[in-house]
Amino acid sequence: MAKTAISPTRAENYPEWYQQVIKGADLAENSDVRGCMVIKPWGYAIWENIQRRLDTMFKATGHENAYFPLFIPMSFLEKEAEHVEGFAKECAVVTHHRLEPDGKGGLQPAPSAKLDEPLIVRPTSETIIGATFARWVQSYRDLPILINQWANVVRWELRTRMFLRTTEFLWQEGHTVHATEEEARAETRQMLDVYAQFAEQHMAMPVIKGEKTAGERFPGAVATYSIEAMMQDRKALQAGTSHFLGQNFAKAQDIKFQNQAGEVQLAWTTSWGVSTRLVGGLIMTHADDDGLVLPPKLAPAHVVVLPMYKSDEERAEVLKYVGELKSGLEAQQYDGEPVRVRIDDRDLRGGDKKWQWVRRGVPLRVEIGPRDLADGAFPVSRRDSSERGPKMSAAQFIEAAPGLLAEIQQSLFDRANAERQAATQTIDSLKDFDAFFAEGAPGGLAYCHFTDGPEMEAHCKALKVTPRCVPIDGEAEAGKCIFSGAPSEKRALFARAY
Amino acid sequence: MAKTAISPTRAENYPEWYQQVIKGADLAENSDVRGCMVIKPWGYAIWENIQRRLDTMFKATGHENAYFPLFIPMSFLEKEAEHVEGFAKECAVVTHHRLEPDGKGGLQPAPSAKLDEPLIVRPTSETIIGATFARWVQSYRDLPILINQWANVVRWELRTRMFLRTTEFLWQEGHTVHATEEEARAETRQMLDVYAQFAEQHMAMPVIKGEKTAGERFPGAVATYSIEAMMQDRKALQAGTSHFLGQNFAKAQDIKFQNQAGEVQLAWTTSWGVSTRLVGGLIMTHADDDGLVLPPKLAPAHVVVLPMYKSDEERAEVLKYVGELKSGLEAQQYDGEPVRVRIDDRDLRGGDKKWQWVRRGVPLRVEIGPRDLADGAFPVSRRDSSERGPKMSAAQFIEAAPGLLAEIQQSLFDRANAERQAATQTIDSLKDFDAFFAEGAPGGLAYCHFTDGPEMEAHCKALKVTPRCVPIDGEAEAGKCIFSGAPSEKRALFARAY
Repeated sequence: MAKTAISPTRAENYPEWYQQVIKGADLAENSDVRGCMVIKPWGYAIWENIQRRLDTMFKATGHENAYFPLFIPMSFLEKEAEHVEGFAKECAVVTHHRLEPDGKGGLQPAPSAKLDEPLIVRPTSETIIGATFARWVQSYRDLPILINQWANVVRWELRTRMFLRTTEFLWQEGHTVHATEEEARAETRQMLDVYAQFAEQHMAMPVIKGEKTAGERFPGAVATYSIEAMMQDRKALQAGTSHFLGQNFAKAQDIKFQNQAGEVQLAWTTSWGVSTRLVGGLIMTHADDDGLVLPPKLAPAHVVVLPMYKSDEERAEVLKYVGELKSGLEAQQYDGEPVRVRIDDRDLRGGDKKWQWVRRGVPLRVEIGPRDLADGAFPVSRRDSSERGPKMSAAQFIEAAPGLLAEIQQSLFDRANAERQAATQTIDSLKDFDAFFAEGAPGGLAYCHFTDGPEMEAHCKALKVTPRCVPIDGEAEAGKCIFSGAPSEKRALFARAY
Repeated sequence: MAKTAISPTRAENYPEWYQQVIKGADLAENSDVRGCMVIKPWGYAIWENIQRRLDTMFKATGHENAYFPLFIPMSFLEKEAEHVEGFAKECAVVTHHRLEPDGKGGLQPAPSAKLDEPLIVRPTSETIIGATFARWVQSYRDLPILINQWANVVRWELRTRMFLRTTEFLWQEGHTVHATEEEARAETRQMLDVYAQFAEQHMAMPVIKGEKTAGERFPGAVATYSIEAMMQDRKALQAGTSHFLGQNFAKAQDIKFQNQAGEVQLAWTTSWGVSTRLVGGLIMTHADDDGLVLPPKLAPAHVVVLPMYKSDEERAEVLKYVGELKSGLEAQQYDGEPVRVRIDDRDLRGGDKKWQWVRRGVPLRVEIGPRDLADGAFPVSRRDSSERGPKMSAAQFIEAAPGLLAEIQQSLFDRANAERQAATQTIDSLKDFDAFFAEGAPGGLAYCHFTDGPEMEAHCKALKVTPRCVPIDGEAEAGKCIFSGAPSEKRALFARAY
């Protein structure tokens, strides 16, 4: 078996491979605070690319950014009954506003500085933003309100895994208010479409759009929609959610408006979010046993250039050549932006350097030494292929780069899509369902007729499977629930999940 | 006296005028959490423009963004003695990680979920980032480390004022590690220059670069530099700081490296930051009695177009015309980006609409109705002038817009600079100093010979004046300290300050 840059391999130990990819690509590391990670520059640069793209899509659909407080008064969480159940449980509680010497050479929270009302570090902001919206909305003329916030949130997680589930994470949360149910429902679906488009076109990650079953809904929502992706280990990842909140939060937060007829009415609200979890999805969709593989649209660098030389003379010659190559590439556009190029001239062994960039997942890599200068051509390596690429002249490569990046972007999507198709089954009996998800079986995504309820939930729970969603694009089809035998008109998607 | 859009006027009550400008421009409002504000879309869009510009400057000087935890273990604050004095005092302390029902229908922090060690919500991140850097730095090859973080921080302020001093605020904090003192000092100065350049060229806010006196230093720093601006009420505003931390934090956090000779050495660190306070500076530098006045480089909209009509037929005609005008303007570039245009076609009275945009400070405003269409020209109003502008045709305006914006940007800087010059004095006696800062006198910026120490500090304190900085660009000049009579070689800048 060939040696790989990441050990263990995916086949050997998928969860540990995931941690090693993060380490090898220098994306993040655990911090000194339990459950919180440090997002390192390479990981943060991917997140910045995600942010920039999504932000453009949010603004194109009429949303504006704003910023609301980090803290939520404890009493706010008491207002929406289901919401408190869901979010008041594990959260960071601020109880004091000062430290003082503890008399033993250390510090302690000052008893004299205890807050009258504890503050919660926001786990999500429906309550504090809702209270603000109640002030903003008076008349139908104030509607709709279409707001997004980029922020950090905290949920006290017991078991954490970098990017996928951390105590503090970064995200965006959209919050909107509408005059009618119809408008609010349309907004919820629109943002689900935005997420799906982003996942497929930018992350090269195929997703299924669907509605969550009652047991998987956001606490306080009337309907929750999600995009679900399949990771390489055939587990599903919920990659984004969009909630139709009905009038529940409007009622709890008193968001009312006067309609055109002069009557006071409750408003309709939505919320929707994606988080740094997307970086985890990116890893488990595309990375391989040599490390990260980045879709070009989100890669901090499209091309890495490694100059090779043995003397100062050679160095000067090679650096001049690669500097011109860089300028030529940067004058080209990919995906509406200049091609992003890094020259790595650090004083490191060539092999070490090469493997660092392989592990970091840069789409195109070229190594250029004096011999290549003499040849007037250098080999171009694609990260999505293990074959050594053809030699190209600088002019050829500059000309070809945008097309190569587009090819890589497409090939990553196609590969992920093929893997998902191979792992997807339509299942019509409980026996087949149990076999599909049996210990040791490969598992995957199963489409089954079902009825929502405790019978289905109990059976799934025993197999550690969950109903991921009822796909929106699924066609109506008469059938029988595999759990209860009751008549069913639509299939749900079942899988193990992160 | 002419009626103004903001009441009270600056002359009547400057602090209250400030609050009313924020309200009138829809920048921010107080939230339900003491001392925390909600940054509304117009205010946040200004902050986004500030961020984008600064971020580009940070990256151009070799810095990368990363993200570190919101929380700091209490014990970390105990490590650097001066730092703990400065920052452990008023901060948000997390003591519990769960809420539970209190038995009276409400919630309470769960006694069973008390943290072993309290966590502090970061007031600044030297300690947590330093602990991380200690892991990253092994060898001189790992240096320099040049990191920036965009984040929220919390300092429990007793008296708050929107943007200027809030319990939670948004900022960026740069943190760097270097092998030599010389390099770290150069970095500190470089970032001070970046801040000064940003303030003057983008905010149109003249600043003085200087070093803080010992009493005004960042807790734990060897030297603190700042940019100081003068507000319209002649008080100074510290608008950005850059700290040379020497080896203090490296020692406290154990940031060591092996040099080329194989010896283990302590590293040298710096930190530097600006915050949403800059928005307060923007307001108090340029706004007038009609509201906000935005420097074009940071304005969310450069041009606002108000279509005027009385019938559906007129509406169709006018909207077609302004749509074409918008496209034409957006094809023009100002400051390297397309001209930003808003058409406000809301169903509101024309006068109300006009004054809303005046209060929001948009640099150029055009109102276009059927008569202007017939004339083939419309009046163009500049926010920095009370005169009604000349009529221009669409083609003329499209052609002229980038130049007009550049003129406004320059005129705002020139005006602020002239105001500052008029309020600046060189003072050589304590009598003159006392008169300059006497109750009821206009006050301003005073350059005086001084010696740092308790005598100077006590005298200043009585007048509510502080030494702002010792200007870097000030020339060496023999003189005598006005407080003690001791010989002095440089003047410091004295002022009342925010």
